[in-house]
Amino acid sequence: LQSKLPNVGTTIFTKMSALAEEHKALNLAQGFPEFDCSPELQRLVDKHVRSGKNQYAPMPGALPLREAISKQTFEASGSEYHPVTDITVTSGATEALFVAISTAVHPGDEVIVFEPAYDSYVPAIELSGGIPVFVTLDPQYDSIDWGAVKACITKKTRAIIINTPHNPTGKVWTASDLQTLAALAEAHDLIVISDEVYEYIVFDGRAHISVASIPSLAERSFVCGSFGKTFHTTGWKLGYCLAPAHFTAEFRKIHQFLVFSVVTPFQFAVAEYLSEPEHYLSLSAFYERKRDLFNDAIKDIGFIQKPSEGSFFQNVSYANLSDENDLALAERLTREIGVASIPVSAFYGRETDFKTLRFCFAKHDETLLKAAGLLNTAR
Amino acid sequence: LQSKLPNVGTTIFTKMSALAEEHKALNLAQGFPEFDCSPELQRLVDKHVRSGKNQYAPMPGALPLREAISKQTFEASGSEYHPVTDITVTSGATEALFVAISTAVHPGDEVIVFEPAYDSYVPAIELSGGIPVFVTLDPQYDSIDWGAVKACITKKTRAIIINTPHNPTGKVWTASDLQTLAALAEAHDLIVISDEVYEYIVFDGRAHISVASIPSLAERSFVCGSFGKTFHTTGWKLGYCLAPAHFTAEFRKIHQFLVFSVVTPFQFAVAEYLSEPEHYLSLSAFYERKRDLFNDAIKDIGFIQKPSEGSFFQNVSYANLSDENDLALAERLTREIGVASIPVSAFYGRETDFKTLRFCFAKHDETLLKAAGLLNTAR
Ligand SMILES: CSCCC(=O)C(=O)O
Ligand SMILES: CSCCC(=O)C(=O)O
Repeated sequence: LQSKLPNVGTTIFTKMSALAEEHKALNLAQGFPEFDCSPELQRLVDKHVRSGKNQYAPMPGALPLREAISKQTFEASGSEYHPVTDITVTSGATEALFVAISTAVHPGDEVIVFEPAYDSYVPAIELSGGIPVFVTLDPQYDSIDWGAVKACITKKTRAIIINTPHNPTGKVWTASDLQTLAALAEAHDLIVISDEVYEYIVFDGRAHISVASIPSLAERSFVCGSFGKTFHTTGWKLGYCLAPAHFTAEFRKIHQFLVFSVVTPFQFAVAEYLSEPEHYLSLSAFYERKRDLFNDAIKDIGFIQKPSEGSFFQNVSYANLSDENDLALAERLTREIGVASIPVSAFYGRETDFKTLRFCFAKHDETLLKAAGLLNTAR
Repeated sequence: LQSKLPNVGTTIFTKMSALAEEHKALNLAQGFPEFDCSPELQRLVDKHVRSGKNQYAPMPGALPLREAISKQTFEASGSEYHPVTDITVTSGATEALFVAISTAVHPGDEVIVFEPAYDSYVPAIELSGGIPVFVTLDPQYDSIDWGAVKACITKKTRAIIINTPHNPTGKVWTASDLQTLAALAEAHDLIVISDEVYEYIVFDGRAHISVASIPSLAERSFVCGSFGKTFHTTGWKLGYCLAPAHFTAEFRKIHQFLVFSVVTPFQFAVAEYLSEPEHYLSLSAFYERKRDLFNDAIKDIGFIQKPSEGSFFQNVSYANLSDENDLALAERLTREIGVASIPVSAFYGRETDFKTLRFCFAKHDETLLKAAGLLNTAR
């Protein structure tokens, strides 16, 4: 069988989770919380499973959930997405991103991708016959090199993918970044695909600025979100895509033949749960404390760490400590010390020499302290 | 935004369900059961949601579910699919079919599709740049025209999609059909994609013969199944794909970037529920009785009906009663009589003149009798 993705292997997340399991290591690699979702949300699932919400949801999503997303988005960003025409519930943000890319990209189109990049963007572009064009960012970057972005725009550039808060760096895009993006996108008629799954996890008083909140951007964007990171339910695969009606109409043409619709009882459960903003507005504080706990516990190792601005990931550079490449180091720490992390090189589509590991701090305090203790023994 | 699926509108299922709702009609159109899944299965979901099965499942599926599918498949067809290398859990059979088609079909490849065809096959082929080649079957067909199939095989023919039990006709493929297919597929090196979601719904003592059960076919096939039709849980979006290891490896490359993984707690619940074969082996008798009840109640209308051989659909031809086209008739019956059905022309990629309606009999007995009573008033 001839492959359509000849360069794709098993994802680094699957690989490191397997290695962690094999060596009974603490898994600070794959990004999922160690703790469970709230009992209240669990009760809501049971309620809807028992009350007959077990057949196909409408193709664009259960209406109460689309209405709840519309309200939540309006409260967060002041932008109005109509539940009937502008919102589609998806099988996680992964499907939302895949469909948005499939909708926007035609064979031969160029798509700008910032590296390090989440690993699903490029295969989705390639499956649509598009050509990824990379703008490289330092793994612990401070600011976006807009000059580099401009330099790679051609007549064939069709779309640009952004991600804020950013995985793996924890970078949160600034208002000025988004204004620059808006001007560029307008000038070159680009479609914007925005991955905002960590939107409710931002630190140190920062605000998440959604693409949805800037009208001139919103009108040319697919904004992809997820409940998995927000409610500690990564396994429920519940996400969504916000986009203007004419984008959404094309998005749904693909979505309807890709999964048709999404798991019904969870849609009703999350719709109810969303009605209480405290269920997600407290998340930043919750994770900021964990970030600080972890960073403080590893501060004597000599890692160069810039505190994560958002998401539940902390990048550390060990360039001043070792010459080992990051994949080798991540594997060795898993085997020898019992702490698994993600080598940031895996987020680049080419060989790199960045000496950076990504740790997920969505773990119990004890796990974070235990992992830090083990890492300290490796100094 | 330029469309990649310019000919796609809203699916007929969505349209007729909306029309049924608008007119408070009995919905015998979209294929989903009116009854709920078993309380035992509901309890199993609650158990796994409460016991922390809420984070990402492994990308190919929770191992206990893959093991249960392997066992079930072996018992049904005698074929051995290894849980680790040959089975992938998907977001319904729709995703399984989409990924199998994306895996097999490259730009320019021709794919043989029998019409009437389920509506997701052709858009999936087109998104991969493939070319559907149609072999037409009469909506109430008796036998497959293998001569016509042979006649359309060219050097570019890459794959063939089959569906047994067949939606919308209710046709169950015979052992001889599958032997002919096996010979053809081998002679022309075709990949077979088999949609078997109604595998546990076959009537009048017939056996479902899976592509999986014929070794020379199985080794070149993606076999797509679903729990939605089997356990009355169409809204859970839980399906799977069986394929030899080297096919599965390529299938997973696409699956992992399309949805990554599938809803975790349902996977564990269904894995446990599958361990009791009585949960699915009684399904044929359950639906056969409903088919007979419905067919008997409408027998005086003058429809030409050949009893459905499998699935939960009954086709009727009204060619001797009216010249109206089937879409017009289906809409009129919904509006005027209060019974929604599916016009079978919607399963063809071109204008047709078949005067056939599809009724879904996965409904309570009272609903079926009430619908029949209403249809009788329209004689
Ligand atoms: C879908 S597995 C990867 C989870 C994740 O978002 C990450 O670890 O970056
Ligand atoms: C996914 S909606 C269509 C359901 C179905 O299988 C049918 O009605 O044919």
